[in-house]
Amino acid sequence: MSCLLRLLCLVSLGLCVSSTVFAEDCIECHKKETPAAVTQWQGSVHAAAVSCSACHGEDHEAIINGKAFVDAKVCGRCHEKAFHEHVDSKHGMGLHAGWGCTRNLESRDPRECSFCHEEGSTKPKTTVQCARFLTQSSEMGALGCNRCHQVENSCASCHTNHITDLASVRAPESCATCHMGPDHPQWEMWQTSRHGVLFEALGEEFGPTCQRCHMPEGSHNVSFGITMSPAMIQPPPEERAVQRQEMLSVCIQCHSRSFSERELTSGDAILEQSKALIKEAADIIRDLADHDLLVPSLQERPEHPLRGRELVLDAQMLYEDISHVERLFFKMKKYDLAKTVKGAFHQNPAYTHWYGNAELKMTLVDIKAEAARLHASVSTREVKAQKQVEQDLYLPLEEELQILKRKHDRGAITADQYRESKQELFEKLPAVESE
Amino acid sequence: MSCLLRLLCLVSLGLCVSSTVFAEDCIECHKKETPAAVTQWQGSVHAAAVSCSACHGEDHEAIINGKAFVDAKVCGRCHEKAFHEHVDSKHGMGLHAGWGCTRNLESRDPRECSFCHEEGSTKPKTTVQCARFLTQSSEMGALGCNRCHQVENSCASCHTNHITDLASVRAPESCATCHMGPDHPQWEMWQTSRHGVLFEALGEEFGPTCQRCHMPEGSHNVSFGITMSPAMIQPPPEERAVQRQEMLSVCIQCHSRSFSERELTSGDAILEQSKALIKEAADIIRDLADHDLLVPSLQERPEHPLRGRELVLDAQMLYEDISHVERLFFKMKKYDLAKTVKGAFHQNPAYTHWYGNAELKMTLVDIKAEAARLHASVSTREVKAQKQVEQDLYLPLEEELQILKRKHDRGAITADQYRESKQELFEKLPAVESE
Amino acid sequence: MSCLLRLLCLVSLGLCVSSTVFAEDCIECHKKETPAAVTQWQGSVHAAAVSCSACHGEDHEAIINGKAFVDAKVCGRCHEKAFHEHVDSKHGMGLHAGWGCTRNLESRDPRECSFCHEEGSTKPKTTVQCARFLTQSSEMGALGCNRCHQVENSCASCHTNHITDLASVRAPESCATCHMGPDHPQWEMWQTSRHGVLFEALGEEFGPTCQRCHMPEGSHNVSFGITMSPAMIQPPPEERAVQRQEMLSVCIQCHSRSFSERELTSGDAILEQSKALIKEAADIIRDLADHDLLVPSLQERPEHPLRGRELVLDAQMLYEDISHVERLFFKMKKYDLAKTVKGAFHQNPAYTHWYGNAELKMTLVDIKAEAARLHASVSTREVKAQKQVEQDLYLPLEEELQILKRKHDRGAITADQYRESKQELFEKLPAVESE
Repeated sequence: MSCLLRLLCLVSLGLCVSSTVFAEDCIECHKKETPAAVTQWQGSVHAAAVSCSACHGEDHEAIINGKAFVDAKVCGRCHEKAFHEHVDSKHGMGLHAGWGCTRNLESRDPRECSFCHEEGSTKPKTTVQCARFLTQSSEMGALGCNRCHQVENSCASCHTNHITDLASVRAPESCATCHMGPDHPQWEMWQTSRHGVLFEALGEEFGPTCQRCHMPEGSHNVSFGITMSPAMIQPPPEERAVQRQEMLSVCIQCHSRSFSERELTSGDAILEQSKALIKEAADIIRDLADHDLLVPSLQERPEHPLRGRELVLDAQMLYEDISHVERLFFKMKKYDLAKTVKGAFHQNPAYTHWYGNAELKMTLVDIKAEAARLHASVSTREVKAQKQVEQDLYLPLEEELQILKRKHDRGAITADQYRESKQELFEKLPAVESE
Repeated sequence: MSCLLRLLCLVSLGLCVSSTVFAEDCIECHKKETPAAVTQWQGSVHAAAVSCSACHGEDHEAIINGKAFVDAKVCGRCHEKAFHEHVDSKHGMGLHAGWGCTRNLESRDPRECSFCHEEGSTKPKTTVQCARFLTQSSEMGALGCNRCHQVENSCASCHTNHITDLASVRAPESCATCHMGPDHPQWEMWQTSRHGVLFEALGEEFGPTCQRCHMPEGSHNVSFGITMSPAMIQPPPEERAVQRQEMLSVCIQCHSRSFSERELTSGDAILEQSKALIKEAADIIRDLADHDLLVPSLQERPEHPLRGRELVLDAQMLYEDISHVERLFFKMKKYDLAKTVKGAFHQNPAYTHWYGNAELKMTLVDIKAEAARLHASVSTREVKAQKQVEQDLYLPLEEELQILKRKHDRGAITADQYRESKQELFEKLPAVESE
Repeated sequence: MSCLLRLLCLVSLGLCVSSTVFAEDCIECHKKETPAAVTQWQGSVHAAAVSCSACHGEDHEAIINGKAFVDAKVCGRCHEKAFHEHVDSKHGMGLHAGWGCTRNLESRDPRECSFCHEEGSTKPKTTVQCARFLTQSSEMGALGCNRCHQVENSCASCHTNHITDLASVRAPESCATCHMGPDHPQWEMWQTSRHGVLFEALGEEFGPTCQRCHMPEGSHNVSFGITMSPAMIQPPPEERAVQRQEMLSVCIQCHSRSFSERELTSGDAILEQSKALIKEAADIIRDLADHDLLVPSLQERPEHPLRGRELVLDAQMLYEDISHVERLFFKMKKYDLAKTVKGAFHQNPAYTHWYGNAELKMTLVDIKAEAARLHASVSTREVKAQKQVEQDLYLPLEEELQILKRKHDRGAITADQYRESKQELFEKLPAVESE
């Protein structure tokens, strides 16, 4: 960084920061308590003008108890442009997507409870929440859900506490911790695509990183050029056309426009083809529900936290306390669809085909097999029910017949009486069996 | 590169290239259209003597429409040795293995259609094709199948367009984009083997790369030392013996011959043991087919594009429109077998055992369970069928009996007439029920 | 290394090594036979004073036949501190955990057979063995099991043969070959955690490696601070408290004590919650076994090598020759539980939630579905059994009735005789059907 720029930077830091607690007060102890944190801050741009309390506040008790979370708004006081780009992007709705905010994050404004809840009630008033989060323990919500979804109000999600060396956020792996795994393995598919391979072999000049395509020129608008919502729903055509041109403006830095358009259009087609497979599966499951063939049935399982006794196959679908066929559908929709489509847009053939398309088709095979099993189980159930009816009818009769026979055998009734009594018993049976 | 070598190189470039369009004509526009492509070419060895049109041709319209693919034969005009090694190796049959060439690649000679098709017909005449490719959409065929299988006629598959810096193709990750995923994770298993670990920690001198073992001395014959076909079929013993010696010549650069032989022989044994599990599973499925227990049956499903109504469990097996038990077999044969055996030959214990052998055995458990379920379903079906027969017989009788009873009850017939009529009805039943 | 230190090092090497065979005798041939091994040794610290035979012994025949394995005890003759730390840690029971030692490793003391076997018998006398190992082929045992579990007596497991450059063992990927895969993907979850991301982007100073947390200050006690056994069983509270303080002493180098405690306590809670799901699944399976509903049943399958005809769901559980529902449990317990809990302790949200918790819950869905299917199969079996009884009873009768009818029809018996004979036949039936 040039001297002038550094000076400007420090002046602006001085302007936007005010604090009565000096860093020295903290450092004395924290050199022993959290030595690396101190060293990292000392090595950072912030050391020159941003003291500990400028971000952490001055309530030491609250800090210790985890109640003084350094919210993105704190960073936004100085880093205005980045903050606003962030808030306006998909990252800015990280928690609203997962919507677990009010439950786990101490720093949230309590008035935000009213986004979901009636005043003073724990009952949700909208369905814009995450049903899966609501069924979690608070620990799993914190370490499993919010560790990523807190990106909305935590710049440290990507930037890490205390480090201001931008090398860490410019490294593509910086995105990996959240953008990985069975539901959206963007990291894995990029890393093994030609883009990732060239980055590894020849560096950033030849191999485009996540940031180069999705955060061009350092923009914090990570929605740039993306034509799908996280639930893989596409916006109206006009909006998509704008987004597509945004993305093409990146592709044509290396590729021809015609090639880039063909690639992205193929991705669109694969999205539609994959959704058709999802629809085929969903129709099978709705038909099973219509015939009351889900095991456990909607009546036998715990209520869906947002929809009650409804069959939920959309973004609010649960993966617990559901039937086997629904769980197969969850894999298909949440994992296989994402791998196929994101694999295509990230130019990774193994994800597009084997991890994606082949799994979509094989899971559809499994779903059809389970549906066939469940339909076949009806006849078993019917046979069993009919047998039960027969048993209810015959067993008491048989007992009486045996009593009669024993009477006759020991001479208590005559052969004629025996025959007549039996005749009477048979007359009680439904017409078909009587004679 | 020494000055003399560089000079020789440029002279030979000059000799094998002829073009009437000068690079300057293209660059003017393409500096704006595809700036990185231009920069990459300018930084390449080619810039000195190989102009754009030397490879891309002069038909700008065709180039824009993706109909001027730069075929390996174009590269082969200058790079003769590498081209011929490539053509003679497994890479040289990349598309013939997948065999989707004529459908998606514009640059192929149309006469190659006759490899598979009758003159002027879409009906295939041989089975040397890829049934899975034939069931795909053209977009999935392009992005999923051919992105890798085009290696046959695209040097850029590995070398990337315009870049001539060999660091990118000598980097082991260069192989990753294709040699990864559930069906052949050579990349993943090498990277986490001791070989890959030493490469990452200490560099190429200590950690052998893909290229060092499989492309020794820069050879483009990637079949060197490999004793299996892609479908894991082994060639005749004499041929294998030659290939084994090839591979040993690489191993003994670091390991003793006796250790290397033991390792490779253990791999052979694991191949045979794994194939025995595959055979056990295949036998179960053939038996199910013999008893017409597959759901859907061969009659109920769409025809196999190459074999019609045949049970296909070999390399032409589909993963869609099949039964659940066949889909389990597909996983076992295509994924689990490959992980076990390739894991062993790449010295990766987690792939050999957990991802491989344990999955082979657990999927065999699943296959046996499904077979048991399907066999049990016979009795259900039989019971159901018998019930149906009884219902067909009794229901009309019951109706007539009820009519008779109502006649008797309302006095339309006498008790004697009633008894006689009932007797007549019963006489119509099979012997066992009559009286 | 300073000159003095190097001198001390060489002196101590000289002190602890004695050998009558000089390296020169070996090198002459091995420069041709195993050139890289020679180069690596020549570039190592050992070259100055530790000759080939100091480690390999002098019996060339034994070496060639793989019977002169360089045991950890050999290294321990010089590297005493590291050896003892190693032996006392979990690594020191690598083979005892897998317990396959005596079967595959030539270098083991034969007296160690007596750990498991009666004198002169192949029958195991304790259950402290690995049932899964006992069902393996020797090749799979060697390449699949012992390649990792030999860590107990092979320093080369991590250090590699001949290389003494510690960069390779200090690199985090050094741990990957064993600590990866479906059963304990510590490598994968660390690499994509913020810890791994910072290591990749900014180096060891910012991103803690496996070694920094688990082998602090170069200790070879890899059990440091770990509060779980490999089977995820926790030691008594006092012992855990000590281990927890050990781990906290590492965390607080970067993080505050309060934050670190909250993180680790959350991990504890997630362990308990996950174990509750495992218990729920185990109870379902035990109930199925109680009702003799496992397919194959305990009687129909091969005996467990250690427990005979017992239902085994603990660490000795097999993954072959079991029922489908047990195989689902194996995945849940061995893979999903480990991913959830280790994911939480390694701060990887994708492993904690999607690869872990979600899989635990979805596999429980599958287990419940299979249990429901198996319970339903009882009614099918009962129906089938009852039908069989009826057939056994009625089919012979029906035949006799048909014979009678044919006699009557052809005039061999009178109508009265026919009626009487039929009556006699019916009298043989159980009471309910007689008349």
